[in-house]
This record gives sequence, structure tokens and C-alpha cells, in this order.
Amino acid sequence: MKDDTTHFALDALRAFITDALARLSLGEAHIPAVADTLLAGERDGGGSHGLFRLIMVARSIRAGQVNTNATPVARDIAPALVRVEAGGGFAPLAFRTGLPILVEKARACGIAALAVNDCAHFAALWPEVEAVARHGLVGLACTPSHAWVAPAGGRKPLFGTNPIAFGWPRPGKDPFVFDFATSAAARGEIELHRRAGKPLPEGWGIDSGGSPTTSPEAVLAGAMLPFGGHKGSNIAAMIELIAGPMIGDMTSAESLAMDGGAATAPRGGELILAIDPVRFAGEKAADRAQAAEALFQAITDQGARLPSLRRYAARRRSMTEGVEVPSRLIADIEALIG
Amino acid sequence: MKDDTTHFALDALRAFITDALARLSLGEAHIPAVADTLLAGERDGGGSHGLFRLIMVARSIRAGQVNTNATPVARDIAPALVRVEAGGGFAPLAFRTGLPILVEKARACGIAALAVNDCAHFAALWPEVEAVARHGLVGLACTPSHAWVAPAGGRKPLFGTNPIAFGWPRPGKDPFVFDFATSAAARGEIELHRRAGKPLPEGWGIDSGGSPTTSPEAVLAGAMLPFGGHKGSNIAAMIELIAGPMIGDMTSAESLAMDGGAATAPRGGELILAIDPVRFAGEKAADRAQAAEALFQAITDQGARLPSLRRYAARRRSMTEGVEVPSRLIADIEALIG
Repeated sequence: MKDDTTHFALDALRAFITDALARLSLGEAHIPAVADTLLAGERDGGGSHGLFRLIMVARSIRAGQVNTNATPVARDIAPALVRVEAGGGFAPLAFRTGLPILVEKARACGIAALAVNDCAHFAALWPEVEAVARHGLVGLACTPSHAWVAPAGGRKPLFGTNPIAFGWPRPGKDPFVFDFATSAAARGEIELHRRAGKPLPEGWGIDSGGSPTTSPEAVLAGAMLPFGGHKGSNIAAMIELIAGPMIGDMTSAESLAMDGGAATAPRGGELILAIDPVRFAGEKAADRAQAAEALFQAITDQGARLPSLRRYAARRRSMTEGVEVPSRLIADIEALIG
Repeated sequence: MKDDTTHFALDALRAFITDALARLSLGEAHIPAVADTLLAGERDGGGSHGLFRLIMVARSIRAGQVNTNATPVARDIAPALVRVEAGGGFAPLAFRTGLPILVEKARACGIAALAVNDCAHFAALWPEVEAVARHGLVGLACTPSHAWVAPAGGRKPLFGTNPIAFGWPRPGKDPFVFDFATSAAARGEIELHRRAGKPLPEGWGIDSGGSPTTSPEAVLAGAMLPFGGHKGSNIAAMIELIAGPMIGDMTSAESLAMDGGAATAPRGGELILAIDPVRFAGEKAADRAQAAEALFQAITDQGARLPSLRRYAARRRSMTEGVEVPSRLIADIEALIG
């Protein structure tokens, strides 16, 4: 244990999180799903998607913007579509409710989609696509968030940070997984620069007049920018549409309006696709799975990284050695929850 | 008519293209599909995806790498999947063969996918997603190409320029459509810089040693780079996987190996998804379609562009005024086809 961190074995950290959620009066059915999600984030590298997110969870519950006792209801709305009405509760239990149906439908139809509607998001999307990929299916997930990001060429916040995640099953190996925000940087990274009094890299955001700036304060009051210029902006727009209006749910602007400045978890929908490569590739499936392996090999052979390897390495380390959590974060959580 | 351009009414240009394809001995069933695709590209803005592509079409036929008389065969491989075996022919006829089945399956199942396998690509992808969107469905299309693009952090060509296209149906309006290569720039743009003796913008490519360069020659001998750094590279990898191995088809590296330096059209598969927003959003569909319209309005209100508006404006102009084609391009085509 270092001075400024507190060591937890994973079981102990799960107990700490579970206790905190119980003290927050989160419904019994939701506690394991939310705890597993927070624990997985901390286990796989921590930072902004680990235990830190317990603060957003607590704030959302305290603000009364989350239904702590919502019972997710799955509806079979078409042969290849399942909708889970989350009833204003946190997303993880709703996703767990829909996953087995999504998997069954993908196997039966070849491709299927799960919409989680009216849920509160506080986590990364990789747990969803990794879960899909561990069933041998290709997974794609996305969600709007709060309207913080200006479209390329624009001046005002409109899109969410709109993450997209993708999972590819690998025979005998951990799935290939990526998960990233379609903003140039995460909002949390901008806040970290603000706290540290450091200027931002160029291209992260604009001020409220629409001019490029490296001031974290100016960007937080102005707008973040999408990654990759007009192309990234188009991807962000697509996510806004397909995980918002297409599934009968809110845009990021509507989510932020509902938040009303309370800094709660973004509210709205999430879209998860699952595709069965065996149904698609047929007798070529095994050979083509090897073609994908050759692609991964060619990536790492030239010194580039597979996006998921760092996460899996952190996971293996955490499972044997536990995790080091900033002691100040523990204190902040204790102070907040009381 | 200007000195260096030749004016064509659209009907006359179609006749010119049709005649050229017949002289190239392209099979009768393929001629209208290929001609419509080339004509649509010229009509909607021309440039590298218009009549210019007739040169790639001619080269592919002359090299014997395209089956000019292939009959696409549609196979119903799962309730929500249709495969069209293109038999080594050009993609447009294969897509036309699969589209009605894709639409029917998307309406029946909520989501469906079309794989076009073993086809030769020479065109943009927006015609596919626009066609899907004009059926009231959300469309997504992607394809590998030739291995010209290094993964972010890498040094060697591996991914194709891997375009992605998206279409969203708008009530009473032209669909919202985008279509872009996941490379930082199109290969054609790099060749244009080379011909003009102009340096490239930074970030477009690396030399054969893996170092950043603005020399078009060095990039053409080295590797192009993906758009948007690691995030864009991940999107390119996803397209490589889902429109290659997932559908039982080739990667961009396998396609380039098959080309063997003949500069023919990339060979392989194409994936098109179609989703029925009415099945998904249910009774909220009309209200949510309006939420999407509000998003588009908020984009244009702040001075940003919708990606498809320029194309539709060019189309309307071309339909009344015809198009101006570089006379040298006409001469090049005549010389090539003879």
C-alpha cells in the first residue's frame, strides 16, 4: 500500500461498493449489477470509469433522477428486436435483462438488436460488447449522452460524447474490444486539466463564441469538439440518431435539458447489436476467424496496439494483486454518502 | 460548353457510358446497373466517383479480374440475413438483386443484413444507403478495399480505405446520408497531389520506413494513415472485420494480394444493414422522427453542414442543366476503350 492509495482485494472492493450502494438505498435487484459494473471498471484500469463513477451514481440517486427500484421489462417487439424498458433505472440491470434474449435472437435470426430505453448511464460500453462477444457473437453498442459536443463546423454543444464500442469473438482468447467517446477527448480529461491548471491540447474544444481555445474553463463553458473532424462528427451524428430517435428515445440535447444542471448520469437509450458470424460466414466461418487472427497479428507485428490488450492485462493483474484506489477518492465517497 | 469541358445532358451521358460498357463486352444484365452507378456519381458532383471510375471499370474488365457475365445469386441464409453471391462480378447488380430481400427482411424482423460476397467495387457507398433510406429504413454500409492504410501506431499498409456510409430517412425530404473513407484522405486525392507536384497536408501518410511525410510519392510507396488517430483506426479495423471475415469474405490485404499490382477494382465483400425505425420506436416513431429533424435543424442553425446537402444540390442542378465533364477524361476513356 502506498501512502496516497488504499489497497483492495477485488472481493473487498466489491463489498465496499455494495455497502455504499445499500446506504444510498439503491434497490436490491440493482445493487449487484451496478456493483459489478463499477468493480469491472476499477479492475480493468480504473480512472474515470472505475470507482470514481460511484460519485455520479450517488449524485444521480440523491437528485432523485434515477428510479432506484425500477424493474426492467423486456418486450419482444419484432423477431430480431428486443426492447428493455428500464423505467428510469440504471442501465446495467436492464442490459442483463435483455442480453439473453438478444443472444437468442441473434442466433435465431443471424442479426438482432437490443434497445435499452429510459435508463441512466454511468459506465463504459465495453462490458456490453465484451459480454456479447463471449457468446461468440459480434457486438456493437452506442449511446448518446449529454449535449456537450459541437458538430464539426459548428459553434454550439449539440451531440453527446456519444461512445461507440465493438467486440469481436476470438477462439480461445479474450475478445477484441474497443470503446471510445466520439468527442476528441473525454469530458473528465478536460476537468482534470482544469483542476491541474494545465492548458488543453489543441482541437479539444471551442469557447462560447465558437473560437478554438486551449482553456479548460472556456471549453467547459463553450463546447467540446468531435474526434476526427467532419468524419468523426458524422459518426457522432449517427450515434445520436440510432441510439436516440431510432429506438424511440432521447437525443443528448433532450437528456441535458432533463438534467437541468444537476450533473446526473445521462438519461436515455442505448443500442446494442449482435451478429452471429457463423450464420453469416457459414462453412467459411473457421477459416475466416483465422483471417481475423492474421489481421490482429499483422497489427501487433508492426508495433501497433490492439485496443483491448491493456485492459485485459490490468484485469489479470487486479485479479491476483487487487487494486490501488486513491485514498482521497475513498474519502470523497464516504463524505458524499455519509 | 467551356473549352476544356464537354457538356452532356444526363440522358446523353448515360448513352455514352452504356455504349462504352457494351464495347468493353460487359454482360447485358450488368450494363444498366453499372451505368446508373457511374451516372449517379457524375450527376451528384463528379470528381473521383463519377465518370472517372469508368477507367477503373475498364481496367478491371481488361485485366480479366471481373466476371463480366456473372449472375448474382441471392441466398436466404437466416431470417434476418441475405447473402448475394456476386460470382466475381461488379457490385451494383448484386446489390440490386439483394435490396428487395433486405428491405423485406428488415420490415419483417426489425433489423436485417445483406452481404454481397465476391464482388468487385468501383463506386461510392452512398447509393446503397440512400436506396435503403428511400424505403423508410435506416441504412449502414461498409466494405474493405485494398490494403493501403497503416493502423494508428503502425508502419505498414494493412487496412483498406474502408468506407462507411449511413442513411437516415426523412419524411418528405431527401435522406440524411454520409459516406466517407476511414483513411485521412482518399487515395485519389494523394494521386492528384502527386500529379500537381504539391506536398500533402500533414497526417495523410507515412513513408516506407514508417516516418511521417508530406511527399505524395513517399506515401504511395509507404502507407496512408487512418482519419482521427487511434479512434479512426479502430473504426477501420471494425469495417475490415465485419465486411470481411464476418461475412465470409476477404480482408483488404487478401484483396490486394489477389490484385497483384494490376490496379483493378478492390475485390471482396460488402455489408449493408437495414433497420426499421417504425418497428423499433413503435408509437413514438413519428415524434422521434421530429426529434431527428430538430437535430438536423440545430446543426444547420449553427452554421454546420449536413453531409448530403451538397450532393443533392449538385443532383438537382445536373438534372436540369446536365453536367460538364473534363474533355480530357472523355479522350482518355475513348483511347482506353478504343
